[in-house]
Amino acid sequence: MTPGRPVPPPLAKPISLDPDWTGVETSTLAAAYGATAPDSGLVPLTVARRVPTEDDVEIAIEFCGLCHSDVHATRGEWRVPPYPLVPGHEIVGRVTRVGTGVQEFAPGDRVGVGCMVDSCRECDSCLDGLEQYCERGNIGTYGAADPRHGGAVTQGGYSTSVVVDRRFVLRIPDALDPAAAAPLLCAGITTYSPLRYFDVEEGDTVGVVGLGGLGHMAVKIAKAMGAEVTVFTTSESKFDAARELGADHVVLSKDSEAMEEANRSIDVIIDTVAAPHDLNPYFRTLRLDGALFQLGLPADDMPPVSPALLIRRRLAYAGSLIGGIAETQEMLDFCAEHGVASDIEIVGAEQLNQAYDRMVAGDVKYRFVLDTATLQEPSERADA
Amino acid sequence: MTPGRPVPPPLAKPISLDPDWTGVETSTLAAAYGATAPDSGLVPLTVARRVPTEDDVEIAIEFCGLCHSDVHATRGEWRVPPYPLVPGHEIVGRVTRVGTGVQEFAPGDRVGVGCMVDSCRECDSCLDGLEQYCERGNIGTYGAADPRHGGAVTQGGYSTSVVVDRRFVLRIPDALDPAAAAPLLCAGITTYSPLRYFDVEEGDTVGVVGLGGLGHMAVKIAKAMGAEVTVFTTSESKFDAARELGADHVVLSKDSEAMEEANRSIDVIIDTVAAPHDLNPYFRTLRLDGALFQLGLPADDMPPVSPALLIRRRLAYAGSLIGGIAETQEMLDFCAEHGVASDIEIVGAEQLNQAYDRMVAGDVKYRFVLDTATLQEPSERADA
Repeated sequence: MTPGRPVPPPLAKPISLDPDWTGVETSTLAAAYGATAPDSGLVPLTVARRVPTEDDVEIAIEFCGLCHSDVHATRGEWRVPPYPLVPGHEIVGRVTRVGTGVQEFAPGDRVGVGCMVDSCRECDSCLDGLEQYCERGNIGTYGAADPRHGGAVTQGGYSTSVVVDRRFVLRIPDALDPAAAAPLLCAGITTYSPLRYFDVEEGDTVGVVGLGGLGHMAVKIAKAMGAEVTVFTTSESKFDAARELGADHVVLSKDSEAMEEANRSIDVIIDTVAAPHDLNPYFRTLRLDGALFQLGLPADDMPPVSPALLIRRRLAYAGSLIGGIAETQEMLDFCAEHGVASDIEIVGAEQLNQAYDRMVAGDVKYRFVLDTATLQEPSERADA
Repeated sequence: MTPGRPVPPPLAKPISLDPDWTGVETSTLAAAYGATAPDSGLVPLTVARRVPTEDDVEIAIEFCGLCHSDVHATRGEWRVPPYPLVPGHEIVGRVTRVGTGVQEFAPGDRVGVGCMVDSCRECDSCLDGLEQYCERGNIGTYGAADPRHGGAVTQGGYSTSVVVDRRFVLRIPDALDPAAAAPLLCAGITTYSPLRYFDVEEGDTVGVVGLGGLGHMAVKIAKAMGAEVTVFTTSESKFDAARELGADHVVLSKDSEAMEEANRSIDVIIDTVAAPHDLNPYFRTLRLDGALFQLGLPADDMPPVSPALLIRRRLAYAGSLIGGIAETQEMLDFCAEHGVASDIEIVGAEQLNQAYDRMVAGDVKYRFVLDTATLQEPSERADA
């Protein structure tokens, strides 16, 4: 919290995470899957969701994408999270109830929730619609203390329902398949935002490093923006897949001759690899004023960047974090207009742990999506 | 040379660098100081300068700044250069003769020459006025083979005269002291260009890392642009000097509390340090969408950059190389308008070697400038 800034008052009482909690007047219970410890795997849980207050939207979740960061978070690989922890920040569903102050959504609307459910709403970033860069820190969709709701820890979308402030709810256009749209809320916006920030347009050339959940979205979105796309991959086995996604060129990054041929051919690179890797060969493929956006967060140090390469062509090595709410809506509308969605494999609750193992092994094309119809209702579990 | 691109035809015969060469019809002799080997130090030399051809401007050099890169180049610390090598790319003097195609300069005009004397003039960079990023490589003011002049190696400004194509000659405004203006041609434009590229304006905050030849110009130029300036230094002994140059704040970079206080306070950082150093503490001082331009070229690897820091605030780690010709003229006019020039110590030819040693020791505030009146004329040396 920035010193000297007033703390927003809590708007509701803390939500208990105790499965036995029965405060039915202010909350409902939702079935969920989450972790109870770093090594618990994902197990059935019940979470309490608040009854919608004035600005809230209650959503019956239909689908939730599985993001690699869900694996890190539930296993405590980045930090020890508050347990129990229900992951999931690629949420699509139908509105069931809205608060009295909500004009923009009505029951039955198809909506989405991404990586954030709130922010301070007052800092320069928030006022500029860049809530992801909130100077006090945005409120993550799961595992974050929510100051406007009594400091209760947020719980994510591997669940049958969720209640979110209207300001952080997105409209899912009818043209989008709801399951394939779910990954747009994280993988889509994370790649769309730097491409928009760099002002990619018809005729620009975009490089994509790594062909996973983020990388495959970067290819599709860049193509939809009219760019010529080059995929850099460490494995020849991915050549066909890259071309199927729409890539105009595929370069084997360990082939130094092929990399030399790509010299000065790219305007902007979206690097989605989350393991340490040498960026200097990629800088050599950039044109004057080019930029490489690194979106993955390796656990270990990256190899050194050569300032000489940056200097010779006025290049930028840059970062980018998801996208703001208005930009996320813009991205959803853009994807609907251009027929862009994620390539997905739908899984049920019982397959979640296996899906996590397959994600770690890179064995998914390109995103798992949980069908929440497979989650048991709490009442059913209570009888079991 | 880019494959498939036509090589510009040579426009003149090669210029011999043999001091005994007497082709008086096509060249004149100029007194100079330069190196004959990596360990020769700077010694008196004679160089041949071509008689101005159609587009040429002949300049009687008055002053030439001493740049740290002159030390590296003459000592062969970056690569083995062609010897003999006359350094100097911060040249100010008076026009003595012009070719028949030169309309914009006349004898008597005060002019300058910076780090480049030519480029391909055809690539996208050149056509955009970004000759420093010429795709075939710009032609450096010294030590470069000059394809338009028979491949002769260029010789720099530690000399009594030079002949340069009109396209690479700058006007020195009357309001500028000619000696103090010389360092603007390299140290000035190298810091001005990234500040302009980042669009620094009234009220922005600029950080400057390192307070040498480049750093002191960065402080003055940023202040003249209306910015609030913070100097980061490793030594408390430089606090007063930084404030005298106009810095609003000085931060001891090894004081972690002071660095923490500077958190999220800076829009753009000009980093002029040419030794390996950890950039991550500086990234923490940047605001959303901030950038750090590294201008120095360390001989060894830089420590790893943290992608997490770049991602959290959409930061850029960037490079920048001198500036284009039009921008260099803009910078000179800007400096004249705002009373900005370099803080200099004028030296004579006999002091050059000592000045080099002092530069290596960091013992100069902030730029040495050679008074070329102290160079002997060739005729005098022939008698000696």
